[in-house]
Amino acid sequence: MRATVHIMLKTGVLDPQGKAIGHALEGLGFDGVGEVRQGKVIELEVPDGTDEARVKDMCEKLLANPVIEDYKIEIAG
Amino acid sequence: MRATVHIMLKTGVLDPQGKAIGHALEGLGFDGVGEVRQGKVIELEVPDGTDEARVKDMCEKLLANPVIEDYKIEIAG
Repeated sequence: MRATVHIMLKTGVLDPQGKAIGHALEGLGFDGVGEVRQGKVIELEVPDGTDEARVKDMCEKLLANPVIEDYKIEIAG
Repeated sequence: MRATVHIMLKTGVLDPQGKAIGHALEGLGFDGVGEVRQGKVIELEVPDGTDEARVKDMCEKLLANPVIEDYKIEIAG
Protein backbone atom coordinates (compact mmCIF):
# COMPACT_ATOMS: atom_id res chain seq x y z
CA MET A 1 0.00 0.00 0.00
CA ARG A 2 1.02 3.57 -0.50
CA ALA A 3 1.26 6.48 1.92
CA THR A 4 1.57 10.07 0.79
CA VAL A 5 2.82 12.79 3.12
CA HIS A 6 2.37 16.47 2.28
CA ILE A 7 4.68 18.78 4.20
CA MET A 8 4.26 22.55 4.21
CA LEU A 9 5.88 25.28 6.27
CA LYS A 10 3.51 26.51 8.98
CA THR A 11 1.59 29.68 8.32
CA GLY A 12 3.71 32.59 9.45
CA VAL A 13 7.03 30.86 8.83
CA LEU A 14 8.94 32.77 6.16
CA ASP A 15 9.26 30.80 2.90
CA PRO A 16 12.11 32.30 0.86
CA GLN A 17 11.85 29.61 -1.80
CA GLY A 18 8.18 30.44 -2.35
CA LYS A 19 9.01 34.16 -2.47
CA ALA A 20 11.69 33.49 -5.12
CA ILE A 21 9.19 31.55 -7.24
CA GLY A 22 6.70 34.42 -6.92
CA HIS A 23 9.27 36.97 -8.10
CA ALA A 24 10.36 34.75 -10.99
CA LEU A 25 6.75 34.33 -12.14
CA GLU A 26 6.32 38.10 -12.06
CA GLY A 27 9.49 38.49 -14.09
CA LEU A 28 8.07 36.11 -16.69
CA GLY A 29 4.98 38.26 -17.04
CA PHE A 30 2.54 36.33 -14.86
CA ASP A 31 0.96 39.29 -13.13
CA GLY A 32 -1.24 39.23 -10.09
CA VAL A 33 0.26 36.16 -8.46
CA GLY A 34 0.04 36.61 -4.71
CA GLU A 35 1.61 34.49 -2.03
CA VAL A 36 3.52 31.43 -3.19
CA ARG A 37 4.52 28.66 -0.80
CA GLN A 38 6.55 25.60 -1.59
CA GLY A 39 6.32 22.32 0.26
CA LYS A 40 7.31 18.71 -0.13
CA VAL A 41 5.40 15.59 -0.95
CA ILE A 42 6.80 12.17 -0.08
CA GLU A 43 5.30 8.97 -1.49
CA LEU A 44 6.16 5.77 0.36
CA GLU A 45 5.49 2.12 -0.40
CA VAL A 46 4.63 0.81 3.07
CA PRO A 47 3.85 -2.73 4.25
CA ASP A 48 0.19 -3.78 4.14
CA GLY A 49 -1.58 -2.97 7.38
CA THR A 50 0.49 0.13 8.09
CA ASP A 51 -1.71 2.60 9.93
CA GLU A 52 -1.66 6.35 10.09
CA ALA A 53 -0.01 6.31 13.52
CA ARG A 54 3.06 4.58 12.08
CA VAL A 55 3.38 7.06 9.24
CA LYS A 56 2.89 9.87 11.77
CA ASP A 57 5.79 8.40 13.73
CA MET A 58 7.93 8.50 10.55
CA CYS A 59 6.99 12.15 10.08
CA GLU A 60 7.84 13.14 13.64
CA LYS A 61 11.16 11.27 13.62
CA LEU A 62 12.43 11.99 10.11
CA LEU A 63 10.21 13.33 7.37
CA ALA A 64 9.04 16.64 8.80
CA ASN A 65 10.30 19.23 11.24
CA PRO A 66 7.24 19.64 13.48
CA VAL A 67 8.59 22.90 14.91
CA ILE A 68 8.18 24.76 11.62
CA GLU A 69 6.27 22.37 9.37
CA ASP A 70 2.75 20.97 9.19
CA TYR A 71 2.11 17.64 7.56
CA LYS A 72 -0.88 15.76 6.20
CA ILE A 73 -0.97 11.99 5.72
CA GLU A 74 -2.97 10.10 3.10
CA ILE A 75 -3.01 6.32 3.03
CA ALA A 76 -4.31 4.53 -0.06
CA GLY A 77 -4.92 0.80 -0.31
CA MET B 1 -8.28 31.75 -5.76
CA ARG B 2 -5.65 29.15 -5.07
CA ALA B 3 -3.81 26.82 -7.41
CA THR B 4 -1.82 23.84 -6.17
CA VAL B 5 0.80 22.16 -8.33
CA HIS B 6 2.18 18.72 -7.45
CA ILE B 7 5.49 17.92 -9.12
CA MET B 8 7.02 14.43 -9.07
CA LEU B 9 9.94 12.94 -10.94
CA LYS B 10 8.72 10.76 -13.81
CA THR B 11 8.61 7.02 -13.24
CA GLY B 12 11.98 5.59 -14.15
CA VAL B 13 13.92 8.74 -13.29
CA LEU B 14 16.31 7.98 -10.42
CA ASP B 15 15.33 9.77 -7.20
CA PRO B 16 18.38 9.85 -4.90
CA GLN B 17 16.59 11.99 -2.33
CA GLY B 18 13.81 9.41 -2.07
CA LYS B 19 16.38 6.62 -1.77
CA ALA B 20 18.12 8.49 1.05
CA ILE B 21 14.83 8.86 2.92
CA GLY B 22 14.16 5.13 2.47
CA HIS B 23 17.55 4.19 3.90
CA ALA B 24 17.15 6.59 6.80
CA LEU B 25 13.73 5.12 7.65
CA GLU B 26 15.24 1.65 7.63
CA GLY B 27 18.03 2.86 9.91
CA LEU B 28 15.40 4.15 12.33
CA GLY B 29 13.77 0.72 12.50
CA PHE B 30 10.88 1.24 10.07
CA ASP B 31 11.15 -2.09 8.27
CA GLY B 32 9.45 -3.06 5.06
CA VAL B 33 9.34 0.39 3.51
CA GLY B 34 9.69 -0.05 -0.25
CA GLU B 35 10.20 2.64 -2.83
CA VAL B 36 10.21 6.23 -1.58
CA ARG B 37 9.88 9.18 -3.93
CA GLN B 38 10.04 12.84 -3.06
CA GLY B 39 8.34 15.58 -4.98
CA LYS B 40 7.37 19.20 -4.59
CA VAL B 41 4.11 20.93 -3.98
CA ILE B 42 3.67 24.60 -4.82
CA GLU B 43 0.67 26.60 -3.62
CA LEU B 44 -0.03 29.84 -5.47
CA GLU B 45 -2.51 32.65 -4.85
CA VAL B 46 -3.63 33.42 -8.40
CA PRO B 47 -5.97 36.12 -9.73
CA ASP B 48 -9.66 35.20 -9.94
CA GLY B 49 -10.51 33.67 -13.27
CA THR B 50 -7.13 32.03 -13.76
CA ASP B 51 -7.66 28.83 -15.72
CA GLU B 52 -5.70 25.62 -15.78
CA ALA B 53 -4.02 26.56 -19.08
CA ARG B 54 -2.37 29.56 -17.43
CA VAL B 55 -1.08 27.51 -14.52
CA LYS B 56 0.12 24.89 -17.01
CA ASP B 57 2.03 27.65 -18.76
CA MET B 58 3.69 28.58 -15.42
CA CYS B 59 4.64 24.92 -14.93
CA GLU B 60 6.18 24.58 -18.39
CA LYS B 61 8.07 27.86 -18.13
CA LEU B 62 9.25 27.80 -14.54
CA LEU B 63 7.80 25.48 -11.94
CA ALA B 64 8.56 22.06 -13.39
CA ASN B 65 11.14 20.50 -15.67
CA PRO B 66 8.88 18.68 -18.14
CA VAL B 67 11.80 16.55 -19.37
CA ILE B 68 12.10 14.65 -16.10
CA GLU B 69 9.07 15.73 -14.06
CA ASP B 70 5.32 15.17 -14.21
CA TYR B 71 2.97 17.69 -12.69
CA LYS B 72 -0.64 17.80 -11.62
CA ILE B 73 -2.65 21.00 -11.24
CA GLU B 74 -5.55 21.59 -8.84
CA ILE B 75 -7.46 24.84 -8.85
CA ALA B 76 -9.73 25.67 -5.94
CA GLY B 77 -12.13 28.58 -5.79
